[in-house]
Amino acid sequence: MSRTISGKEIAEHSSRESCWIIVHGKVYDVTEFLPEHPGGSKIILKYAGKDATAEYDPIHPPNAITDNLPPEKHLGAVDPATVTQVAAAPTDAEKARLTRMEQRPPLGEILSLHDFEAIAREVLPEKAWAYYSSAADDEITLRENHAAYHRVWFRPRILRSVTHVDWSTSILGHASKMPLYITATALGKLGHPDGELNLTRAAAKHGVIQMIPTLASCSFDEIVDAAAPGQVQFLQLYVNSDRAITEKFVRHAERRGVKALFITVDAPQLGRREKDMRMKFEAEDPAEVTDNKVSDKVDRSQGAARAISSFIDTGLDWADIPWFQSITTMPIILKGVQCWEDALLAYDAGLAGVVLSNHGGRQLEFSRSGLETLVEVVAHLKEKRGLTFPNARFQLFVDGGVRRATDVLKAIALGATAVGVGRPFLYAFSSYGQDGVERALQILNDEFEMSMRLLGARSIAEVVPEMVDASSIHQHIVAVPSDRLYEANYETMQSVRLREIKPRM
Amino acid sequence: MSRTISGKEIAEHSSRESCWIIVHGKVYDVTEFLPEHPGGSKIILKYAGKDATAEYDPIHPPNAITDNLPPEKHLGAVDPATVTQVAAAPTDAEKARLTRMEQRPPLGEILSLHDFEAIAREVLPEKAWAYYSSAADDEITLRENHAAYHRVWFRPRILRSVTHVDWSTSILGHASKMPLYITATALGKLGHPDGELNLTRAAAKHGVIQMIPTLASCSFDEIVDAAAPGQVQFLQLYVNSDRAITEKFVRHAERRGVKALFITVDAPQLGRREKDMRMKFEAEDPAEVTDNKVSDKVDRSQGAARAISSFIDTGLDWADIPWFQSITTMPIILKGVQCWEDALLAYDAGLAGVVLSNHGGRQLEFSRSGLETLVEVVAHLKEKRGLTFPNARFQLFVDGGVRRATDVLKAIALGATAVGVGRPFLYAFSSYGQDGVERALQILNDEFEMSMRLLGARSIAEVVPEMVDASSIHQHIVAVPSDRLYEANYETMQSVRLREIKPRM
Amino acid sequence: MSRTISGKEIAEHSSRESCWIIVHGKVYDVTEFLPEHPGGSKIILKYAGKDATAEYDPIHPPNAITDNLPPEKHLGAVDPATVTQVAAAPTDAEKARLTRMEQRPPLGEILSLHDFEAIAREVLPEKAWAYYSSAADDEITLRENHAAYHRVWFRPRILRSVTHVDWSTSILGHASKMPLYITATALGKLGHPDGELNLTRAAAKHGVIQMIPTLASCSFDEIVDAAAPGQVQFLQLYVNSDRAITEKFVRHAERRGVKALFITVDAPQLGRREKDMRMKFEAEDPAEVTDNKVSDKVDRSQGAARAISSFIDTGLDWADIPWFQSITTMPIILKGVQCWEDALLAYDAGLAGVVLSNHGGRQLEFSRSGLETLVEVVAHLKEKRGLTFPNARFQLFVDGGVRRATDVLKAIALGATAVGVGRPFLYAFSSYGQDGVERALQILNDEFEMSMRLLGARSIAEVVPEMVDASSIHQHIVAVPSDRLYEANYETMQSVRLREIKPRM
Amino acid sequence: MSRTISGKEIAEHSSRESCWIIVHGKVYDVTEFLPEHPGGSKIILKYAGKDATAEYDPIHPPNAITDNLPPEKHLGAVDPATVTQVAAAPTDAEKARLTRMEQRPPLGEILSLHDFEAIAREVLPEKAWAYYSSAADDEITLRENHAAYHRVWFRPRILRSVTHVDWSTSILGHASKMPLYITATALGKLGHPDGELNLTRAAAKHGVIQMIPTLASCSFDEIVDAAAPGQVQFLQLYVNSDRAITEKFVRHAERRGVKALFITVDAPQLGRREKDMRMKFEAEDPAEVTDNKVSDKVDRSQGAARAISSFIDTGLDWADIPWFQSITTMPIILKGVQCWEDALLAYDAGLAGVVLSNHGGRQLEFSRSGLETLVEVVAHLKEKRGLTFPNARFQLFVDGGVRRATDVLKAIALGATAVGVGRPFLYAFSSYGQDGVERALQILNDEFEMSMRLLGARSIAEVVPEMVDASSIHQHIVAVPSDRLYEANYETMQSVRLREIKPRM
Repeated sequence: MSRTISGKEIAEHSSRESCWIIVHGKVYDVTEFLPEHPGGSKIILKYAGKDATAEYDPIHPPNAITDNLPPEKHLGAVDPATVTQVAAAPTDAEKARLTRMEQRPPLGEILSLHDFEAIAREVLPEKAWAYYSSAADDEITLRENHAAYHRVWFRPRILRSVTHVDWSTSILGHASKMPLYITATALGKLGHPDGELNLTRAAAKHGVIQMIPTLASCSFDEIVDAAAPGQVQFLQLYVNSDRAITEKFVRHAERRGVKALFITVDAPQLGRREKDMRMKFEAEDPAEVTDNKVSDKVDRSQGAARAISSFIDTGLDWADIPWFQSITTMPIILKGVQCWEDALLAYDAGLAGVVLSNHGGRQLEFSRSGLETLVEVVAHLKEKRGLTFPNARFQLFVDGGVRRATDVLKAIALGATAVGVGRPFLYAFSSYGQDGVERALQILNDEFEMSMRLLGARSIAEVVPEMVDASSIHQHIVAVPSDRLYEANYETMQSVRLREIKPRM
Repeated sequence: MSRTISGKEIAEHSSRESCWIIVHGKVYDVTEFLPEHPGGSKIILKYAGKDATAEYDPIHPPNAITDNLPPEKHLGAVDPATVTQVAAAPTDAEKARLTRMEQRPPLGEILSLHDFEAIAREVLPEKAWAYYSSAADDEITLRENHAAYHRVWFRPRILRSVTHVDWSTSILGHASKMPLYITATALGKLGHPDGELNLTRAAAKHGVIQMIPTLASCSFDEIVDAAAPGQVQFLQLYVNSDRAITEKFVRHAERRGVKALFITVDAPQLGRREKDMRMKFEAEDPAEVTDNKVSDKVDRSQGAARAISSFIDTGLDWADIPWFQSITTMPIILKGVQCWEDALLAYDAGLAGVVLSNHGGRQLEFSRSGLETLVEVVAHLKEKRGLTFPNARFQLFVDGGVRRATDVLKAIALGATAVGVGRPFLYAFSSYGQDGVERALQILNDEFEMSMRLLGARSIAEVVPEMVDASSIHQHIVAVPSDRLYEANYETMQSVRLREIKPRM
Repeated sequence: MSRTISGKEIAEHSSRESCWIIVHGKVYDVTEFLPEHPGGSKIILKYAGKDATAEYDPIHPPNAITDNLPPEKHLGAVDPATVTQVAAAPTDAEKARLTRMEQRPPLGEILSLHDFEAIAREVLPEKAWAYYSSAADDEITLRENHAAYHRVWFRPRILRSVTHVDWSTSILGHASKMPLYITATALGKLGHPDGELNLTRAAAKHGVIQMIPTLASCSFDEIVDAAAPGQVQFLQLYVNSDRAITEKFVRHAERRGVKALFITVDAPQLGRREKDMRMKFEAEDPAEVTDNKVSDKVDRSQGAARAISSFIDTGLDWADIPWFQSITTMPIILKGVQCWEDALLAYDAGLAGVVLSNHGGRQLEFSRSGLETLVEVVAHLKEKRGLTFPNARFQLFVDGGVRRATDVLKAIALGATAVGVGRPFLYAFSSYGQDGVERALQILNDEFEMSMRLLGARSIAEVVPEMVDASSIHQHIVAVPSDRLYEANYETMQSVRLREIKPRM
Repeated sequence: MSRTISGKEIAEHSSRESCWIIVHGKVYDVTEFLPEHPGGSKIILKYAGKDATAEYDPIHPPNAITDNLPPEKHLGAVDPATVTQVAAAPTDAEKARLTRMEQRPPLGEILSLHDFEAIAREVLPEKAWAYYSSAADDEITLRENHAAYHRVWFRPRILRSVTHVDWSTSILGHASKMPLYITATALGKLGHPDGELNLTRAAAKHGVIQMIPTLASCSFDEIVDAAAPGQVQFLQLYVNSDRAITEKFVRHAERRGVKALFITVDAPQLGRREKDMRMKFEAEDPAEVTDNKVSDKVDRSQGAARAISSFIDTGLDWADIPWFQSITTMPIILKGVQCWEDALLAYDAGLAGVVLSNHGGRQLEFSRSGLETLVEVVAHLKEKRGLTFPNARFQLFVDGGVRRATDVLKAIALGATAVGVGRPFLYAFSSYGQDGVERALQILNDEFEMSMRLLGARSIAEVVPEMVDASSIHQHIVAVPSDRLYEANYETMQSVRLREIKPRM
């Protein structure tokens, strides 16, 4: 495994029969792995006998290849002098994208988190946009997550001296400058070469907490190493079918100083995200696709989501909870709870809290929003166990659909300790790197200051249930379909119009 | 009737005064039948003295002509050597359609049942699309059937080991690999030359049950013959005014092994489907239409629906139920029940179940969706007779508007035994034949697997009422009409935009 | 007054100082009347010294001029040989309209009442379209009238032998072939030269009742004369400030055989209909308008509505009811009742019924629909007086927004005796004359037959409250305004697309 | 300070190091003030050494410069003979705007308050339009203010002699010809050179009350001086951090005859209005913006709102109320109350009333509309203190979203004494000066007359709660997001179409 191999020799193994590839300067024989590759063999064969690092990097956790190939397939190091880089000429689409990148407005013109998304749409590579923005099925849940906030309205108080307002809070015992945290999202390098490190560094500057994702593009240790002294980080965990791997990971994280463990429980299988899957097809070589027979029944489209998630344990169960409690002293929070019954079970199991979430609308379509679930959880845990919220001993978090400080304050008023924000920060660093994330946090700070003043709340403790009207939160309505014959006949009202002044001849 | 007739002789009978036509190599004198033809005389006269088989086939049950003409009008067999085929040159529209047919994407790119519909719209002959897709009046009910599912949201459970999930079930005592069946739809050959046989064969491969329609393009026996050994089939019945015909049909079906009888009760008269009717006009010879006087008051448009349904008995009554019970031992289910009162009557009459359905939105406009009716039926049958659902002795089915496995699971959670799916399979085989139906079933299997896991249900028995929130199901709301003067004045918000970089001169 | 006047002499009186006009061959001196003309003096001055009949006819009741001018201003008859007709060359817009008139599809292609409106929009003169189609303010009430029907859904019954279905009924003791009547609408000649007579003749053929409008273009007697023997007609009454005129009119109507008196109570002043008013401006001579100073504050726009209604008594009061009861033995019905309190007063006053109506959305914006009011009236009159509906002694009618037989049946199920239909018949005769109205009635008959069968009701008596779900009728909701920044960022889902097959080179 | 300075000398002070400007003929040294200018230093430097009056005037209260600069920076008067005016050539955009100004339709064509807005959009300078029309965040609250009125419907009464209807009322003891007042809006000169005086003069003519804004473009005394003898004016107050300034202002106002003091309590900090902020960027010199580095993190955009409001006291508190009561005998009303709890506190504090308002949607996004708050305030103050409304001793006002007399009447029926109208009058005078405001008031008078008649109310006292149905007022619903794959497949209904007549060859 330590021998040095020439580019020429590698290039000879460029077929399905014998397929070698270079990743990060190491040579691997992936011939036998081809049929097992979650992303299909075709994409690997494209790099057979060549350097695949550029394609490999954003999609895979750094240790994916070493973990999946037996040692004897690790052939050795490549002799760099002998390799010709595959210098792909950028496509017209890519050139246009790079031009748009040049045309980004200065950060000072970004006025809200929506603006980052507007820019990211323009400057992200299509594949990255599809992976980040896509959600389950018809993406109804994705949009409901945002829309749910529109069903909750404020009841602000006046004449409370609000010169000094303070929106800092405590999350699982750790100080946070805002009642929100950066939640875990996968594959950060799809959007920016520094990936998740953009978040780590910006979080340090603004005093907010980052949740490190299992499926980060950067390695766990890179992300922890990038933290400032004393910076608090949490860990999001996808549980591996091989519990030994999970145990090793969790113990390592605790040793590295991670402060809480968020176990994802809403993703025994990663969702079908059709935008992502469809992208896959359209990006493929059209000639090759054309050759497929119409009757080709094999589903070759997996999208990025499934390509990276085959290891997740579908058998995770309540019975596993004591085991987790035995391997770590970190507080354990379940991420992805979606009804009060499971929140109650989590409480009774002695856990530290739950994240009410539907995974950003990316898993089960027609799951309710975290905000809606929050209302029923608060009501039932009061009824069943006498709890009131926010509650230091059992904390409720919500994520999905947040774009404004007002969204966050609605969740806080309804009983959440803090709110997780994901995609907006992805869009921020994809568009502007670390500066983008800092600008996003600054905008949120500005919004918190103003909203707290206008709400009449001088501290997070003063953001109380009476400050919101959530009585419409459970309404899931759809208008009776329109009568299109009638609508087509109806001639719309017109305002007065400017005169057209005719010249006098 | 057994004599052989030359094409030349037939061609002499090409007028309203004497009109012979050839169907499947047999010659018929239809002169006296012209005014009675449900589809109008004009369409027959177009083929007077010629071979009408191509036009006849997709629209008529195979035995329509022999059943409707007295024996003396069956003149004999045509002498094939003497007939010139009417080789119609394809129109420009038809040529464009055939090109689109060539451009169908490979089946692997079809990701959901919606995709089949998107392709079918492009590749179906206009008349077939109009017949399949049309519905009653303003098609509000058609769309409500789908929309009703959007008013029901999930309450998923977590941490239930879901490695093995099983969505097979039992329908009227027969195993089904999924909690759905292929419901009856008419005129399959409009979409594909193999018609309903596409469904039979795909159903066999995937272990689901097909309901054979009375108005199939293929004959009943062809469909039964196409079944695999042991394959379960049900029969949908339109009751004939001539009960002897119905009795013969039912007894024959039972003898051929059909396992259940679904009597359609929501169609004493087939609905006005204006899309279908309008198509008829536009397809007609414009010259001829132009000659019509503006004041022509005769409604010549019937659409395919009425053309094929004049035999249906408008007098069907509860009093007929015992008679049906006397002529068959098959379980009897009423298809088209729309309120709890009738479900209760069906139960009290000793029937095996009801299909809560509004006939795919094709009959009475503003009938509620089957899903909504299900909620009231379950509530009232519990109150009146103490029944709980699903119930093996009295089974509830729902059809209309289903496109996703999540739709099916909502109905199951609310008490249905299984759900009928119709149009999506029509679109699947119209676009891709039997392969299309198989792909559709495979997609549903994928969706069931994922949805069951994400719902936390390992078997259909674990899909329980607590897993859905249907509290908005009875809301039939329409927004207050917009104030268009105000809306027109309101200037929409704009996101930040890319800069346009001016060249430096 | 009986002298004969030459065109030359008349032409000399063509100024504001002395203004004579010819109407129907009679010469009138309108100089002093100019400032009082409800439609403004300008329009009259356009015809000063000329024949104004063509402009006068559709807008005025036939006797308007004779009633409004003192006898000494009736100068005599014109000498026809001496008058040159003003032969206006049709404008380009008018020519295009006449071409569209030629292009009307044959009546057989008209499939629903919506279709008449689609044609009328194209073929009506702009002024007529504006007058017929316009409504109050933002026309929200107009559209709500139709939309209210969409909030009521059916609960149909099955297996009730429906071979014979009968939708005839009795209205105020008079047989009607359908549970609807042709309600009063003004200015029929704007749409068709025969005006309201189209309705009279078609009503006779189909056995329905016509309500004669006070503001008909045809004279009352013309309309009564056009009736077939035994044909039932009702009278709609705008009460004149001069009660002697009203008394004379009512007594005359009763003598002529009119069977019921519908007193309009929702129009003490006719509504502002901005579409109509705006039309007025745009139709005016642009040169003249341009000369207006910007600061011209006089509201010259009245639209047709106000031009014809200045005589209506704003002082009409409950105290007048006994007087009406003293001058006629016809049953008296109040047209335009909008809450249960007034329906109760009408009942207690011994009247024969009420029309729950908001005047087709043309009067008070945000008045509720008749259908919604019906629900509260039925509930409260049962509670207060023990009445059940339909009720022969005190009948409830509804109008506004009806386009389908299903709309009518919803109102019947909720307790109405019959439903008034107005605009659809206007559109029908404006497009196709009497034939159009007959076709409209025939379509309704077809729809009634089918809907009664599918509803499981064999007679109007069997159309009962249990057949509808009106639980959403009082919902007046408006969605929270959309978040346009979010919406603009959201990239819509796309279905699979046809491949574009590239030629092989 | 009294020396006369030559233009030449002034022009030498045109840099950041020494910056003099001319305003209204006076010379000021603003060098040290540059970094403190709320609108940024850049805009001042543009006029360094020049006359800044034209830019200064509409944005600043007249005494802003004298109040903010210490006396020693007031250098003296400019010598007019020595100054060259900066005669800016109008931009193309400005020329197009002036052309549109020429094309305004005559006032007589303006039919509703919406029409003024339609014209103002076209003829206002972009900056003025952005400042007037913008609102907080996504402008959801702005639109909700209008939409809330659509959830309240009328229950009109009939047969009440309505010849004489009277919509005059009493507001805080002062006669008003209508139940509305002109509420305070800032920076009137942005829209018209006469600014707020347009309102004063029109108010006098129509007998309505004007509320004078603290942030008027005209000085307080100019506005009071413009009043007619006996004309009633109120004062809107932004409380200054320096209470001495506020006390002086309030005492001065009372001495000048102002009749009531409306203290704004919903704006301790002025809201982020992104439309306004974005305008700022787009209006800036593109070259300069382009030079900004992408990473420029300083938020240079403040919009007009923040530029003018830095003096407002964020520490205003209930404890300050007695002080206000000690410095004035004017009745005190809190403007910006948003829940019943604060209305109750205001009542208990002995105040004269509250304005239920969210500041025209310009402050806290998702604040409820004043109309909605009104319903809860009336209910709770009845419950807690036995009050009924309208109530002379404690008056309720509402503002935001009003466009029609029907809107006003809904608020009156629900218990308001009067309604504040702001933007529509801004749009009226921006488009047509004082004449526009008069026309707007005349339109409202017309609408009141008609609406009172149609409602059956002869006086404001007869506009009672039973006349409206507000049962849907608290509904904050959002439709379930649409299923776009389904919607895209659904082929809309089509009406019949005109034939295309083919020429006969």
